[in-house]
Amino acid sequence: MPDLDPALTDELTETALALADAARPETLRWFRSDALSADNKEEAGFDPVTQADRDAEAAMRRVLAERRPSDAILGEEYGHSSGSTCLTWVLDPVDGTRAFLAGAPTWGVLIAVGDAAGPSIGVIDQPYIGERFVGAGGRAWSVGPQGQRALATRAPRPLAQATLLTTFPEVGEPDERAAFQAVARQARLTRYGLDCYAYALVAAGQVDLVIEAGLQAYDIQGPMAVVQAAGGIVSDWRGNPAHEGGRVIAAANARIHAEALALLRDVQ
Amino acid sequence: MPDLDPALTDELTETALALADAARPETLRWFRSDALSADNKEEAGFDPVTQADRDAEAAMRRVLAERRPSDAILGEEYGHSSGSTCLTWVLDPVDGTRAFLAGAPTWGVLIAVGDAAGPSIGVIDQPYIGERFVGAGGRAWSVGPQGQRALATRAPRPLAQATLLTTFPEVGEPDERAAFQAVARQARLTRYGLDCYAYALVAAGQVDLVIEAGLQAYDIQGPMAVVQAAGGIVSDWRGNPAHEGGRVIAAANARIHAEALALLRDVQ
Repeated sequence: MPDLDPALTDELTETALALADAARPETLRWFRSDALSADNKEEAGFDPVTQADRDAEAAMRRVLAERRPSDAILGEEYGHSSGSTCLTWVLDPVDGTRAFLAGAPTWGVLIAVGDAAGPSIGVIDQPYIGERFVGAGGRAWSVGPQGQRALATRAPRPLAQATLLTTFPEVGEPDERAAFQAVARQARLTRYGLDCYAYALVAAGQVDLVIEAGLQAYDIQGPMAVVQAAGGIVSDWRGNPAHEGGRVIAAANARIHAEALALLRDVQ
Repeated sequence: MPDLDPALTDELTETALALADAARPETLRWFRSDALSADNKEEAGFDPVTQADRDAEAAMRRVLAERRPSDAILGEEYGHSSGSTCLTWVLDPVDGTRAFLAGAPTWGVLIAVGDAAGPSIGVIDQPYIGERFVGAGGRAWSVGPQGQRALATRAPRPLAQATLLTTFPEVGEPDERAAFQAVARQARLTRYGLDCYAYALVAAGQVDLVIEAGLQAYDIQGPMAVVQAAGGIVSDWRGNPAHEGGRVIAAANARIHAEALALLRDVQ
């Protein structure tokens, strides 16, 4: 989307951080609790919804009702609420539900705000670690156990020296898995199961690539804004916009993005 | 090993915690640092050693030289140092080097002390999260972002309802992977790439099983002592002692241990 004016950027960034603050106690109340129970959204497969999802999204919607009542909202749990501005808040209260259910601290609360062209501001928040990754107004930073740090993606290195992250082998159709494997075979190191935390690690300059498939808009818009503000590139597997979800690649720089895309783009 | 007397248990536990304290700044100095560089231990494959490994083990050896100079030490980086007591300290300064290199907070510092029959006291420390899992004197506890908590493994549930963790598909021979897949196919949920943190999640009652292969003694002795003190069972894939490494299963309880072992034990 076009750049927002600085005063609006500041107001929206403060609001995004307030949403993340509001979600934290709601998720932490359930994380690793004995009472945590999983519903099944789908008859087949395993896609649990926890009470944490619902509580955290409800808490964020309460903050928006107070601060930005005219903006639209798209949330994983409570769907779409229309607004009268050009702005939509895109919320995934617990991205990485499987990690959440297993007690692993790689899930996150995802927040984005933007328009039909994509997100301008994004947050990836990991409440258990107490770590937050933010992209806003052309800057990206994290706040966590080691204080506040600027985020910047890695300089180019060949795919043969690169680290690739994904939630595969759990996610994706067989042909998508095959395309992913074509990249993984050439990468130096592939790691699995990091969920949204993987995008934070691209933004933080720790890894080179995230490749995923089957995403929803609320899975990618927060991470996308963080990675882009840190200097990275996020697109679909053919290089087109990815803010509506689907097959997504997040790359540290244009060179590794092109190298991976050359291996991914032939998937039907 | 036989139970130690309470005074010795206390002394060794305090020493183990002092080792973990000493290792923390050494690993954190390198974690996510620009200067982090990886050596290759093996010509083939990818088994990086970082300076963090060496610094952290050296710091722990300095503590032992002061507090327990007569005990033996087995460390990943600096090998075996003989002693004159029946006790050996078993140290893995950075378990999960690949996670460390990718910036993921699932690596840990592993500490155990025991005799030839296995570890009596164990620690899994995650310095970035500031989270520590301890098993000693028949008790297990964690200290972390949510304060101190007692650790207890899960009550029995069928494998079809269980969560299984592993570092596969990265680790293991093809027949080992096949045996693992036999268990994974029956489990409700399988998660990858959590390294030593997986054992902490068994001890914390969050998951049911960890199954791995190709381990060294220093990979398993710390986690083993934590899981056992929390009520779990750790063995090799035939139900024999696992403290020397190799193929390892850590189970929340005897029932799920037996159910998984029935699928694993036929691997040659």
